[in-house]
Amino acid sequence: MNHHDLEEGTQLHLDFTKLKKVAACGEDIIPAIAQDHKTGEVLIVGYANQLALKTALKERMATFWSTSRNELWIKGKTSGDYLEIVEIRVNCEQNSILYLVTPKGQGACHTKDSTGQARSGCYYRKLSGDSTLMFVGR
Amino acid sequence: MNHHDLEEGTQLHLDFTKLKKVAACGEDIIPAIAQDHKTGEVLIVGYANQLALKTALKERMATFWSTSRNELWIKGKTSGDYLEIVEIRVNCEQNSILYLVTPKGQGACHTKDSTGQARSGCYYRKLSGDSTLMFVGR
Repeated sequence: MNHHDLEEGTQLHLDFTKLKKVAACGEDIIPAIAQDHKTGEVLIVGYANQLALKTALKERMATFWSTSRNELWIKGKTSGDYLEIVEIRVNCEQNSILYLVTPKGQGACHTKDSTGQARSGCYYRKLSGDSTLMFVGR
Repeated sequence: MNHHDLEEGTQLHLDFTKLKKVAACGEDIIPAIAQDHKTGEVLIVGYANQLALKTALKERMATFWSTSRNELWIKGKTSGDYLEIVEIRVNCEQNSILYLVTPKGQGACHTKDSTGQARSGCYYRKLSGDSTLMFVGR
């Protein structure tokens, strides 16, 4: 399935090999979720290594490790659409982190809605039935 | 660090090898987040394979694949503390899922607060400075 259909389509086509690819990047990483501190919206799920967390603490911007490009990814550093950190949470077993953020600039998702606006977060579709997606909100 | 200190301590000790271990389980899996539909609280992050999603759709309970036990994990199936599914969201690139849930029974986290109550979610500590954790709420 091409990128457009994957992101703007209504057909479920989950890539279950994702974590195999993620692990193959060679870095020691954990899941890192960014959540809008105010609205509660889960914006994006990425991955973080020690450097990403260190950078997030220093820059106060949600920072991930891009497992596809294999490089540090300070979200919005170039576009201006960064996610300002309010708080960083850690789970019970200390193997994931949750960035509570205030979105700056435009949306946290790289996709755009039908009006050309960047979407606030990546979870803009819900499952409807077993294999069909339905757009939620914008 | 032992389990108790990891879960109830105030020292940051993130296990950055988590996703390497997760991938080593051999299953094709993606991150699966459970969020309280009403409060917005991110409760728990787990992993899901095709069977877990299929089961979640059928049972209407948040279901994961336990990568440590390498078996299907219908959250709360035995304890009664299950997470009833309101909606299942999919991200732009279709490589993670978000369960919007209504918690039934007690908390979604296996840990207990100082009064012996199960904690509602796993993210009950925040980073305070570079390496110290502080309890948030209960």
